Amino acid sequence: MDLDARALELDAYVFHSWSAQAKLNPFVISGGLGCRVWDNSGRTYLDFSSQLVNVNIGHQHPAVVAAIQEQAGILATISPPTANLQRGEAAKRIVDRAPDGFNKVFFTNGGADANENAIRMARLHTGRDKILSTYRSYHGNTGAAIVSTGDWRRVANEYARGHAHFFGPYLYRSEFWAQTPEEESERALHHLERVIQSEGPSGIAAILLETIPGTAGVLMPPPGYLEGVRALCDKYDLVLIFDEVMAGFGRTGNWFAFDGYDVVPDLITFAKGVNSGYVPAGGVIISDAIAHDFDEVVFPGGLTYSGHPLAMASIVATLDAMESEGIVENAARIGRDVLAPALAKLKADHPIVGDVRGVGVFWAVELVSDQASRTPVSAAVMARVKSELLARNLLPFLSENRIHVVPPCVVTDAEVAEAMAIYDEVLSLDLLS
Amino acid sequence: MDLDARALELDAYVFHSWSAQAKLNPFVISGGLGCRVWDNSGRTYLDFSSQLVNVNIGHQHPAVVAAIQEQAGILATISPPTANLQRGEAAKRIVDRAPDGFNKVFFTNGGADANENAIRMARLHTGRDKILSTYRSYHGNTGAAIVSTGDWRRVANEYARGHAHFFGPYLYRSEFWAQTPEEESERALHHLERVIQSEGPSGIAAILLETIPGTAGVLMPPPGYLEGVRALCDKYDLVLIFDEVMAGFGRTGNWFAFDGYDVVPDLITFAKGVNSGYVPAGGVIISDAIAHDFDEVVFPGGLTYSGHPLAMASIVATLDAMESEGIVENAARIGRDVLAPALAKLKADHPIVGDVRGVGVFWAVELVSDQASRTPVSAAVMARVKSELLARNLLPFLSENRIHVVPPCVVTDAEVAEAMAIYDEVLSLDLLS
Ligand SMILES: Cc1ncc(COP(=O)(O)O)c(C=O)c1O
Ligand SMILES: Cc1ncc(COP(=O)(O)O)c(C=O)c1O
Repeated sequence: MDLDARALELDAYVFHSWSAQAKLNPFVISGGLGCRVWDNSGRTYLDFSSQLVNVNIGHQHPAVVAAIQEQAGILATISPPTANLQRGEAAKRIVDRAPDGFNKVFFTNGGADANENAIRMARLHTGRDKILSTYRSYHGNTGAAIVSTGDWRRVANEYARGHAHFFGPYLYRSEFWAQTPEEESERALHHLERVIQSEGPSGIAAILLETIPGTAGVLMPPPGYLEGVRALCDKYDLVLIFDEVMAGFGRTGNWFAFDGYDVVPDLITFAKGVNSGYVPAGGVIISDAIAHDFDEVVFPGGLTYSGHPLAMASIVATLDAMESEGIVENAARIGRDVLAPALAKLKADHPIVGDVRGVGVFWAVELVSDQASRTPVSAAVMARVKSELLARNLLPFLSENRIHVVPPCVVTDAEVAEAMAIYDEVLSLDLLS
Repeated sequence: MDLDARALELDAYVFHSWSAQAKLNPFVISGGLGCRVWDNSGRTYLDFSSQLVNVNIGHQHPAVVAAIQEQAGILATISPPTANLQRGEAAKRIVDRAPDGFNKVFFTNGGADANENAIRMARLHTGRDKILSTYRSYHGNTGAAIVSTGDWRRVANEYARGHAHFFGPYLYRSEFWAQTPEEESERALHHLERVIQSEGPSGIAAILLETIPGTAGVLMPPPGYLEGVRALCDKYDLVLIFDEVMAGFGRTGNWFAFDGYDVVPDLITFAKGVNSGYVPAGGVIISDAIAHDFDEVVFPGGLTYSGHPLAMASIVATLDAMESEGIVENAARIGRDVLAPALAKLKADHPIVGDVRGVGVFWAVELVSDQASRTPVSAAVMARVKSELLARNLLPFLSENRIHVVPPCVVTDAEVAEAMAIYDEVLSLDLLS
């Protein structure tokens, strides 16, 4: 039996996330390099999804692969209490890229447990319980992370004890009847302050916010919004947690998405781009004020694989390669000079495109059945879009009525041109009839 | 600067789990093989902790290292929706070792998120909310897992909304005034049934139980207890989740700890031993009745690194090596023929040893200041025990007033003899004055 057939046969034993198990239609991916992945039969795809928006450095970067292989040969696993050189090297590189006043990193296995531990720290720091987060958000799939998540896929809010949600800014579908970015920002801040007052500031530990909400639609914060949230946190003495799991480590053309704004949070959560997911890893970067709480007092949290040597070696190699190869700068340039004009043209050329927004290699294209009403296209249209893109060997990231244009940060001008031609061709089809 | 000094210096950037950050006293581990680990200066330790009781196959097993290196060179990461050969191979090997009627595996990054997803499945399966677990337990550090945990280190129960706790059997410190194992079993079951009735069975989704509670003290279930819990779950229509994160995959001398009893759960969670933690991995093995709930209905849960190729390759290599090298059988033999008599002798020889219990390579030795009252030795005594064991180059696993004797499953008779001589020497010191 060929390897792809064998992979599909054995897939019967795998329970897939976010899926109805009898309705799967998986295809095989067995290898990759840079922005390309392929199956065993030699079919190649252009990866404009970065998988789950995590492969920022591209597939199979040789320096990262070599670092994993080398560390595997030395010491694959060791428990968190020991001192391990790769762990310290990784923490230092992360702290070096964070703002002044951030000097400690707590490592986890991914984004969800990063948010869990940030929430824990904020609760212990304030002695308060409630976590505020937006309805349009994704923070992960564990106990506190999933109830922070406002995503439609989340478990129902009946489990969100100790959590409350608010609406963030999203001018294209404003919850505040706003007409301009400035109005959206001002009204979203007013709304947030009313929620804080109504929930009771003395019971609120933290505001947890994706700096740029990703899965919810690359919702670019309008001018002054993030700065305004910081001001509200200062006014009401709340911890501000920025979830940089998807937006961080190069995606926006900066090391952190908040580097693009005049704002510094109290806790930063990360995963994905920090090592492009070559080994499961995530963590919390902790400001001194919160870290010092646990100088003499035990932090009551941990996990078996905190600071796992393979993950750490891959972080070190990833951040070094991103730095020396100018990969973050490439993401910034591609966003500004290549994707921005190309996606503006896509919108101009196709009435099905309602909105385009983003930065770096982090963009969303909203498909609507009607420009005036901004009605999202149906799930059936999106299924068609998916199969037409796949048929043209482009691996897309689709969410609700949107195409997220999220290639690796190493994407070239030529690869963008190739992808744009495919998007253009598919959007030229008679999708709405 | 030498590498150990550098590792210790950079450790300042690492926020350590379960610790006060200004009171750390970490030492360097930079390499290992089998039951030994070492630092860069050549100091070698005998690892009778298996780190956090996860390195079942021992350190740096060449076949597992080679599998990770090979997979890293082919494809380090790929998102969960695709079909990937290593993922299917890993799932099949796990299902092959599970009881009949378990045919799907949901992969996670560790033990906590395994329990999170099992809890999610049980809640969705029953349409009910509450999770019952024991006060003496450890289930991990994320939202729902940590409030299931009854451990003293957990966050306070004020966050345990949707959870209730009960006392499990522990004859040496019986909560039920029992004198014999049979009495302990019967009374613990009576207590559990009263809790179920009092919490209200119509609101309870599941009982989550470590098959053999590990960190809480290797609390061997007395005769009939697990079977009795199964009967209560059947009577009240509750899902039974066995947490096999620490006890599973060889630790007890069986593939699963529950293989030693006449009982089958509905969901099995695992991590640690499945790949000895060489790459972060865990998961849920799902019985058909629960898996079928999600044939046509979407399972609302996932994580970026579910079924990560490096983790999957390491699972395949680990389970194959454990099988072909008879590693589970070795753990059984060592437990029965070597550790059981040696630890019985330790108890006979040292009045500070109050109780010894376990199976396979999963044992606890309770230290008491007084045999009659069973008073646990103080934290200061345990700190002394730790430093004396480390001074003799034995890496111990200590919890409260106990030494957990938990070497890798590959441990040899000679290594056990070496460790027993060290334990004997340290317990011969004048520890109580
Ligand atoms: C913003 C954000 N936070 C958290 C997560 C959860 O990360 P993980 O899937 O690694 O738990 C994600 C995953 O997509 C994310 O996009
Ligand atoms: C029985 C049990 N369940 C769950 C966990 C949590 O596993 P992890 O630390 O990988 O999240 C542990 C960890 O020690 C455990 O012993």
